Amino acid sequence: MTSPAPSPAPSPAPSPAPEDLSLLEALHSTPARRYLSTEPVPDEIVRAILDAAIRGPSGGNAQSWAWIVVRDPETKKRIADWYREGWNRHYGSRREEILQAAESVPDQVPMSKRSFLAADHLAAHIEEAPVWIVPVLLGAAKSANPRLGSSVYGAVQQLMLAARAYGLGSTLTTLHIGHEADVREALGLPGDALTMAIIPIGYPSQGRWSQPKRRPLDEVVFWDRYTS
Amino acid sequence: MTSPAPSPAPSPAPSPAPEDLSLLEALHSTPARRYLSTEPVPDEIVRAILDAAIRGPSGGNAQSWAWIVVRDPETKKRIADWYREGWNRHYGSRREEILQAAESVPDQVPMSKRSFLAADHLAAHIEEAPVWIVPVLLGAAKSANPRLGSSVYGAVQQLMLAARAYGLGSTLTTLHIGHEADVREALGLPGDALTMAIIPIGYPSQGRWSQPKRRPLDEVVFWDRYTS
Repeated sequence: MTSPAPSPAPSPAPSPAPEDLSLLEALHSTPARRYLSTEPVPDEIVRAILDAAIRGPSGGNAQSWAWIVVRDPETKKRIADWYREGWNRHYGSRREEILQAAESVPDQVPMSKRSFLAADHLAAHIEEAPVWIVPVLLGAAKSANPRLGSSVYGAVQQLMLAARAYGLGSTLTTLHIGHEADVREALGLPGDALTMAIIPIGYPSQGRWSQPKRRPLDEVVFWDRYTS
Repeated sequence: MTSPAPSPAPSPAPSPAPEDLSLLEALHSTPARRYLSTEPVPDEIVRAILDAAIRGPSGGNAQSWAWIVVRDPETKKRIADWYREGWNRHYGSRREEILQAAESVPDQVPMSKRSFLAADHLAAHIEEAPVWIVPVLLGAAKSANPRLGSSVYGAVQQLMLAARAYGLGSTLTTLHIGHEADVREALGLPGDALTMAIIPIGYPSQGRWSQPKRRPLDEVVFWDRYTS
């Protein structure tokens, strides 16, 4: 008798198949993922998540949207610099103040230290995400309609949830908008187009699929009438 | 021997348990549902879908939102009249024109005859939906930011998907906004609040969970650069 083969090293738990993830579980465990690896994402997966995205709401089913898949390193690099400019203006330049507040009065600031550091990491590395999706609304460049996004952000959420099914993390960002005209030009968009977000996508390199922390439900839900 | 008992009448296929619905299936089969029954929705289900909603994105995790659950018949009736006014102004008054175009040049109009009739039905019956959710952004009444909705419509999509898990249909509507100030007052909202939608919710009375029809993916997706 030959001796039994040595046990193989334990392999990591296999990722569940995309179609096995339950809807309710996904809705409760898809936080912004800001630490992403450089591992490429197959084009057929990008297509699959976009095919889920476009099933989201579009007012009057007008679908006046375009979805730009950005993989070109040079394009990402140019836009990343503009993104970092936005990050630094709004948050990065207030680094000490925000981190100190997150430590000393955590109940009074929305952003935790961990969230700030993750967003800071993303700003420094956003071009390393293998693929970005830029949802665009055509004919909307001059819009001042605060509800304009009702015809795209639901679809964006479908995109980020579908990505989750394939093990891909993502974040909805808008910090590029100080350079809207530059981004429009870099992507070859028509003059009447409005970029609605940049969504970097990749396999997570840190963190986990945990439930986003939010204020208690009873603080934000009101029955029949708002009360302050 | 006794004769076998007669076969019972076939019972309808049992609804799957909410937690059994797959994410990818839900993303591909949650159309706007505009034919809703008057059957009440238990409060604990309303809470469950709102708890899923608030896990959606909120810029900087600010959560400056409020979610009004409207069940009061009198409040719904008042707002429904304003909703119908919006429907008639934008679509209802063009009934013949829209229906004729949907028949004669279906490729050139986004709204099918079926969609028009469903939306017309909703306008006539919206107050009969047992519950509406009105997502609100506080401090946003004067916003002219076309990307404002990035901090609420993703959560709204989570709401509508979670509703689907419980067998509940919904639609994102904004036709009340010609009476924004009136709706704000009817819901007791502060002067700086902006209502972002009205989402009537109920058990569907007609139709099915079919995939929303959209333009082919390759017409709306662009790789690295937009091309017209």
